[in-house]
Amino acid sequence: MSDIIFRLATRADLPSIVRMLADDELGSQRERHQDPLPDSYMKAFEQIDNDTNHELVVAELNGEVIGTLQLMFLPSISFQGGLRAQVESVRVDTKYRDQGIGSKLMQWTIDRAKARGAHVVQLTTHKSREEAHRFYERLGFKESHLGMKLNLK
Amino acid sequence: MSDIIFRLATRADLPSIVRMLADDELGSQRERHQDPLPDSYMKAFEQIDNDTNHELVVAELNGEVIGTLQLMFLPSISFQGGLRAQVESVRVDTKYRDQGIGSKLMQWTIDRAKARGAHVVQLTTHKSREEAHRFYERLGFKESHLGMKLNLK
Repeated sequence: MSDIIFRLATRADLPSIVRMLADDELGSQRERHQDPLPDSYMKAFEQIDNDTNHELVVAELNGEVIGTLQLMFLPSISFQGGLRAQVESVRVDTKYRDQGIGSKLMQWTIDRAKARGAHVVQLTTHKSREEAHRFYERLGFKESHLGMKLNLK
Repeated sequence: MSDIIFRLATRADLPSIVRMLADDELGSQRERHQDPLPDSYMKAFEQIDNDTNHELVVAELNGEVIGTLQLMFLPSISFQGGLRAQVESVRVDTKYRDQGIGSKLMQWTIDRAKARGAHVVQLTTHKSREEAHRFYERLGFKESHLGMKLNLK
């Protein structure tokens, strides 16, 4: 496990990322892991890749992409104009679960947010993901908010 | 109330916006509503103003700024590369509460997110803000997630 590296994703990583997003009870209902991938994934990748406030991150082990998350830096008036970091779409390949990879990926991300000067890392997790809640609590996250969504489509 | 307008904020609106953010049980502990405002607010305003994915919105009535929120458009790989809209820092001037201004402000914002093609509007509210939860439920938001934060400072 010492060979694990964390880095920004390239376009070539996108199929592995979508595979992990789709390999999940909630994700399987909303993703389309096909070859070739639907264009909409490519377009979103381009937007993220061209915006310095958005980073698509992967964990790589022996040349294989086995984890991912999306990191956003959000300028904000509140907290005296404080920069927020936000994490979305965290996944570790099911074959590599329970080996501490998610923790290392999150710790790398938290350090990156600190280096950028963010005052907080925020995320939401679906109420049904109880293991995820405990995972984030072990990393020091506090459950202070409710996450509410309004679907538009 | 028919004269209320919703628009993007200008730099001149910033003192009114910070006043509303500070006039709040949680906000009073973290904002500095001074004249002149601390530079950090100005810097955050510039970042938001220069980024087409970020919008600082105000409600104006008879020339007075009486409501605000921040709207963000977040590119995302998940949901087939779907665009998310996120709302933060929603406030209505205490003098103008319970007159439907917050609802109109949010409805304007939801329509704006729809027009941009977002598939969801997401937000978090502090667990202690029970009135806010009911307010967002009336607008159609579902409480599906937990919001977790890790303070870095």
